[in-house]
Amino acid sequence: MARKRLGRQTVKLQHPPSIISTATTVGPKEGEGPLSHYFDVVLTDDLCGENSWELSESKMLRETIKSAIQKADKNIVEIEYLLSGDLLNQLMAASFAARDLDIPFLGLYGACSTMTESLSIGAMLIDGGYANYVAAATSSHFSSAERQFRFPLELGNQRSLTAQWTVTGAGAAILAANGSGPYISHVTTGKVIDLGIKDVNNMGAAMAPAAADTITAHFEDTGFKPEDYDLIVTGDLGAIGKEIAEEIVLDKGYNITKVFNDCGLLIFDNKTQDTHAGGSGCGCSASVFCSYIFKEMINKKLNKVLLISTGALLSSTSALQGQSIPSIAHAVTITNILKH
Amino acid sequence: MARKRLGRQTVKLQHPPSIISTATTVGPKEGEGPLSHYFDVVLTDDLCGENSWELSESKMLRETIKSAIQKADKNIVEIEYLLSGDLLNQLMAASFAARDLDIPFLGLYGACSTMTESLSIGAMLIDGGYANYVAAATSSHFSSAERQFRFPLELGNQRSLTAQWTVTGAGAAILAANGSGPYISHVTTGKVIDLGIKDVNNMGAAMAPAAADTITAHFEDTGFKPEDYDLIVTGDLGAIGKEIAEEIVLDKGYNITKVFNDCGLLIFDNKTQDTHAGGSGCGCSASVFCSYIFKEMINKKLNKVLLISTGALLSSTSALQGQSIPSIAHAVTITNILKH
Repeated sequence: MARKRLGRQTVKLQHPPSIISTATTVGPKEGEGPLSHYFDVVLTDDLCGENSWELSESKMLRETIKSAIQKADKNIVEIEYLLSGDLLNQLMAASFAARDLDIPFLGLYGACSTMTESLSIGAMLIDGGYANYVAAATSSHFSSAERQFRFPLELGNQRSLTAQWTVTGAGAAILAANGSGPYISHVTTGKVIDLGIKDVNNMGAAMAPAAADTITAHFEDTGFKPEDYDLIVTGDLGAIGKEIAEEIVLDKGYNITKVFNDCGLLIFDNKTQDTHAGGSGCGCSASVFCSYIFKEMINKKLNKVLLISTGALLSSTSALQGQSIPSIAHAVTITNILKH
Repeated sequence: MARKRLGRQTVKLQHPPSIISTATTVGPKEGEGPLSHYFDVVLTDDLCGENSWELSESKMLRETIKSAIQKADKNIVEIEYLLSGDLLNQLMAASFAARDLDIPFLGLYGACSTMTESLSIGAMLIDGGYANYVAAATSSHFSSAERQFRFPLELGNQRSLTAQWTVTGAGAAILAANGSGPYISHVTTGKVIDLGIKDVNNMGAAMAPAAADTITAHFEDTGFKPEDYDLIVTGDLGAIGKEIAEEIVLDKGYNITKVFNDCGLLIFDNKTQDTHAGGSGCGCSASVFCSYIFKEMINKKLNKVLLISTGALLSSTSALQGQSIPSIAHAVTITNILKH
C-alpha cells in the first residue's frame, strides 16, 4: 500500500495544506437567500455585463479566482496550479477564465462534485511537494445550465417538485503548503455509482447513493465516526437526496443525522424562494463552502467538517439515449485542529 | 519554491513512476493506417456492438482500460485511481466507463490534451505517495465527435482542407510506483493560450501556440535541449499546426526539427486516407502513445520522448457565440534511463 493511503478510497495528508483564503460571487437570487451576508459579491445582474450567460459565468469564475488570490495576499504568478471545471460543455466557464489568468491549468470535470475534486487534487499536489500555492475553483449559472441541460428559459416550463435550482455562483479557495488552517487532512475519492435513476428532474435521488457510498467509505477508511464532525455536508442532494443518503448511510451503521446538512438546502429558503427540492450546480457547494462554512471555521464555530460535493454525470445526449444517471461524490476533511 | 519544482510549469518526479503496461483499441480506418500492427484491437465495426456511437466509445474505453490492467497482471481492485476524460459533453465515455469499473475516479477535461493530463496527475499521485497503481486513459470517436462538434454525418458535408479527422481510438496506461520503466520523469503543465483563431476547421493553427508555449517552457524549466530527446511528439496539431509550432519554438531559440513529429501525422497516411490535415481527438495521442511509442520504448528504439498532447478548449456554444479557441498542451518526459 502506498505510504499515505488509508483503505481503498482515502488518503491522509502528511503535511495537511491550509486553505488560506476563499472568495465567492453569487447571483441575485442567491443573494436574497439565508446566506446572503456571507457572500463577498452579490451580482445585481446575472449577465454580469457580458453578452451571454456562458461568458457571464466565466467572468464570475475568473473574478472570484482573482479575488481569492488577492485575499491571500498573493500574485497570480505565485499560484502554481489552477484546478477548475464547471458544468458547461467543454468547461467553457473554466477554460475561458483560465485563458486570462496565466496559471498552469488542469481542467476537471466531476459535474457538481468539482469543488471537492479540485480541493482533493490540489491538496495532494501541495502535500506531495509539487506546489506551494494552488487555486481550486468552480462555478455554475442557472441560466447557462438550464438552456444546456433542460429547456430554453423563454419557454417558461413548469418545474417538477423534485427538480433543483442551479445556483448562480462561483467559489474559489487558495491552498497553501504553509498556513494556520483550516487544513485539508483527508481526501476520499469517489467511485461512479449508478442505481438506475433516469429522471433528470430528480438528480438528488440519482446522486444520493454515490454520496452515501463515499461517506461510508470515508468512515471505514479513516475510523472516524459521525460524532467526530461538527458538520457533514453534501454538495447538492437537496431535500429528497439528503433523506435518501442519510438512510443508506444509517443502513451501513453510521447515524449522521445530528450533524448532516446539504449545501443545496442551506443556500435557499425553499419555502419562500420557490426552489423546490433545493439548490444544485457546481457553484452550490463551492459558494456555500467558500463563504458560510469557511467563515464559520475561521470563527471556530465549526472545527471539523466533512465536505462531500456530489455530481450527476449525465449529459443531454445520455439522457436522450435513455441512459440512467451515473453519479459521483468526493469528500475532504477540513479541520482546524491537527493531531500529530 | 516547492521542493520538486523546476521553474514555473515543470516538476521533476523524485521517484519516477513506471508505465508498466498500455493497451489500445482503434477503429477500422485507424487499423488501415501506417501504425496498424502496433494496435492491440482494431474494431471491424465502429459501433462496437452498441446502439450509439457514444456508448460504443465508452465501451471501447472501458475495455481498453480493463485490457491494460490485465496486461499489467493486476486486478481492478489494485488500481487506486482512474484518471480519465474524453471529448463528449460531460465526459459521457469516461463517466459511463468508470461506472462499470469500481475504481476511485477523477474526471479530467483537457480536450485532446487529456492523455498527458492524466499521465501528469497520475505520475504526481504515485510519486507523492498516494497510490501504487493508477490508470490513465482517454478516447475519442470520429462519429460521436462529428455530430457533437460539427454536423450530422448523414449530411455528408465537404470537409475543409485544414480540417482534421477525429481518431476513433482509446488508449490506457497503467502507472506504478515500482517498475523497470519507461519512467515518467518530468511533468510540464500547460497554460491556456489563445491567439485569436476562430476557425473551428483549423484546430491545428489554434493549438500550435499552446504546444509551442509548453515545449518552450519545458526546455526553459528543465534545461533540456531538443537533442536530449529521441522524439518530441505533439498530440494532434496535424500538418498545419505542426509547422506553426515548430516555427514558434524556433523563434524562441530551440530547433526541434530533427526530432519533431505529431501523432496526428503518424496515425494516418494522409495521402491515401483522405484525412486532410491529419488525425485529431483525445484518442489520437492516446492510441499512438500507448501503441507505437510505448512499444518502441520497450524495444529501446526510442529512449527519451517528450509527449505533448494538445487540446482545443472550444465548445459548440463558444463557437456559435463568435469566440476564439482557447488551447492548452501538457507535456511529460518519458524515458528509459534515469540519471541519479
